[in-house]
Amino acid sequence: MSTFGLIEYKDASPQVKAIYDDIMTTRKTDYINNFWKAIAHDPALLKRTWEDVKAVMGPGSLDPLTKELIYIAVSVTNSCNYCIASHTASGFAKGMTPAMFKELQAVIGMANETNKLVIGYQVALDARFQPPLDLPK
Amino acid sequence: MSTFGLIEYKDASPQVKAIYDDIMTTRKTDYINNFWKAIAHDPALLKRTWEDVKAVMGPGSLDPLTKELIYIAVSVTNSCNYCIASHTASGFAKGMTPAMFKELQAVIGMANETNKLVIGYQVALDARFQPPLDLPK
Amino acid sequence: MSTFGLIEYKDASPQVKAIYDDIMTTRKTDYINNFWKAIAHDPALLKRTWEDVKAVMGPGSLDPLTKELIYIAVSVTNSCNYCIASHTASGFAKGMTPAMFKELQAVIGMANETNKLVIGYQVALDARFQPPLDLPK
Amino acid sequence: MSTFGLIEYKDASPQVKAIYDDIMTTRKTDYINNFWKAIAHDPALLKRTWEDVKAVMGPGSLDPLTKELIYIAVSVTNSCNYCIASHTASGFAKGMTPAMFKELQAVIGMANETNKLVIGYQVALDARFQPPLDLPK
Amino acid sequence: MSTFGLIEYKDASPQVKAIYDDIMTTRKTDYINNFWKAIAHDPALLKRTWEDVKAVMGPGSLDPLTKELIYIAVSVTNSCNYCIASHTASGFAKGMTPAMFKELQAVIGMANETNKLVIGYQVALDARFQPPLDLPK
Amino acid sequence: MSTFGLIEYKDASPQVKAIYDDIMTTRKTDYINNFWKAIAHDPALLKRTWEDVKAVMGPGSLDPLTKELIYIAVSVTNSCNYCIASHTASGFAKGMTPAMFKELQAVIGMANETNKLVIGYQVALDARFQPPLDLPK
Repeated sequence: MSTFGLIEYKDASPQVKAIYDDIMTTRKTDYINNFWKAIAHDPALLKRTWEDVKAVMGPGSLDPLTKELIYIAVSVTNSCNYCIASHTASGFAKGMTPAMFKELQAVIGMANETNKLVIGYQVALDARFQPPLDLPK
Repeated sequence: MSTFGLIEYKDASPQVKAIYDDIMTTRKTDYINNFWKAIAHDPALLKRTWEDVKAVMGPGSLDPLTKELIYIAVSVTNSCNYCIASHTASGFAKGMTPAMFKELQAVIGMANETNKLVIGYQVALDARFQPPLDLPK
Repeated sequence: MSTFGLIEYKDASPQVKAIYDDIMTTRKTDYINNFWKAIAHDPALLKRTWEDVKAVMGPGSLDPLTKELIYIAVSVTNSCNYCIASHTASGFAKGMTPAMFKELQAVIGMANETNKLVIGYQVALDARFQPPLDLPK
Repeated sequence: MSTFGLIEYKDASPQVKAIYDDIMTTRKTDYINNFWKAIAHDPALLKRTWEDVKAVMGPGSLDPLTKELIYIAVSVTNSCNYCIASHTASGFAKGMTPAMFKELQAVIGMANETNKLVIGYQVALDARFQPPLDLPK
Repeated sequence: MSTFGLIEYKDASPQVKAIYDDIMTTRKTDYINNFWKAIAHDPALLKRTWEDVKAVMGPGSLDPLTKELIYIAVSVTNSCNYCIASHTASGFAKGMTPAMFKELQAVIGMANETNKLVIGYQVALDARFQPPLDLPK
Repeated sequence: MSTFGLIEYKDASPQVKAIYDDIMTTRKTDYINNFWKAIAHDPALLKRTWEDVKAVMGPGSLDPLTKELIYIAVSVTNSCNYCIASHTASGFAKGMTPAMFKELQAVIGMANETNKLVIGYQVALDARFQPPLDLPK
């Protein structure tokens, strides 16, 4: 089920249990994904990754659903099947509609196609797109 | 500047000029990106790609700015420098704020990290995430 | 120009010179690409890589030009700019026409798009495509 | 079997049925791959993708079998298992011999290796390979 | 030089300066890489990334040089030119010899080749390699 | 189990048997991985690949375990599940401890994250990291 197996809640150390508890509280669920149970064999990684995910995926200038869409776009481009399946489910849970899912996939497919056309035709960057950008303060 | 060079507006065939015109009208600009000028050597590709981009990137269930963010996420994951530079500029032109850009990059980085942790730890998919999903109609 | 710089013919050891000579003879040219000059710092790698390339890229069931097209397809998908530039030049030298180049890029773009649609929609494999294939002997 | 399940012919809308019919007629088969049944949930995507595939993969300067080889090369480089399985089957159906398959895989493997040697050794592009190329009209 | 330009030490906020100081102290250098100066526009990202890098790349069961080699292997596989250049320099600074660099590149090239042969030949996993592994406690 | 099925020892040609024998002798095992049995349909590829692997993965300036770690890092970054599973098992067989595995995965995850931050923020290379490096002879 993973390189070292999955650590279930009842078998977890207090340190791991505390993170599982925080995941469940934060996400308002009583379910812990296999991902967390698999990396719980490295409690420092579990802690660091969860804290980073909590900080990065929460509300900000971008809403949590938009962040899920971005997460899915990365996961599809990386061919990470687990990630696609879990974040697609998570996206629907956060309000992604089937119509949004379909537009998301169409954009991902299109971006992957045009990325390769750019590279295959060896397109040089337009001077106006050269960083740094002149942005309003 | 690209495998066959760039086709400028004044040198373009009527067929290519018509697409350049549609790009400029649709995007309310008088500028044609190098990408279009590079693939204009294949007018059928130019036409098909532009029509697909116009259909996919326009408003729908997802707004155009969200689609730009997704485009950037794919381009960063694919290491496509031209695409990142041009779509980052395009994102700012469509209302992306520096704060949104920063959150976008943080999510992309995080997703790329956790994608690899999932794969490296060989995490099996949770039964509940197995497709097909049971979605509301 | 590369991590250790480029080893020019006149500065090469006899072992490296012999491989440079074989490259030039086999390819009917007096030019050695930077790639070979860069990896010549590891003569064992240079020798092994050249011998493998010579064996793999020569005529067989697939002709050398078809092999160049495949090489370009891999290089574009991997975003390897050097590889795209050198193999595109090599393809034209071996008889690739601009029309072939354009069809090649269109297929590469399309394949990258549909690859991601397959993955994003989590499409399960059709039973009939499961390996091993039942092939005629 | 896919995020939304597969849409079988008998359950398809007239719009989707028309595309399924065109796929079967064009390919001289009575079988629709899971890929099309999975993306049929987005009829606009189904239509656009099929029309693009039909245009791009048909005969031209490159024959359809060569295009399948290129498709497989992209799919292997992208680690798209579904795509590899379906296009490998399709390649054999179009006349790819086992010997051709083997040479194809050898080229793909070699190209992936040398792509990374180029990048790892940070090889700068030879002046003569800089685009635009000076091609015969 | 980056999307928002680089933040030099003298122009940095106290929060960013504190991290620059910690980087220089930890690494025993008076130089801050462009990477840190580029992401310093997002002080939270700068802080989190630096703390994670410091925790992950320090000594442990694997020595820092081995970790640099792994970092380079990832960066080459991802075609990240900046990352390759900076970590190659860093590797040499930490004691990587030219001979080690060469073996590293040879392994990276080989692994990329065989990865694709595995995928292209659709090799099923041997039962004995199925996780979870039966490891000594 | 693979495109052409697996060639077992008893069914192998003398040429293939000789390589199987060398693999088992070199690795001090009586087991042949599916990978070799799958590519044995192309005896020239089998021979070349095995000889290259034997040359590259053996002891040198880097020890065989370090080379396994590098192999795993490439395989994870490439999302090659077979490769990860077989080389993870191989790593443990060569002395990788669970603690080393965990640090390896943490470095891989971190490198994938920072690779993308570099690219997403469009960081230009520091002058001091420009190749060629000034290395001690």
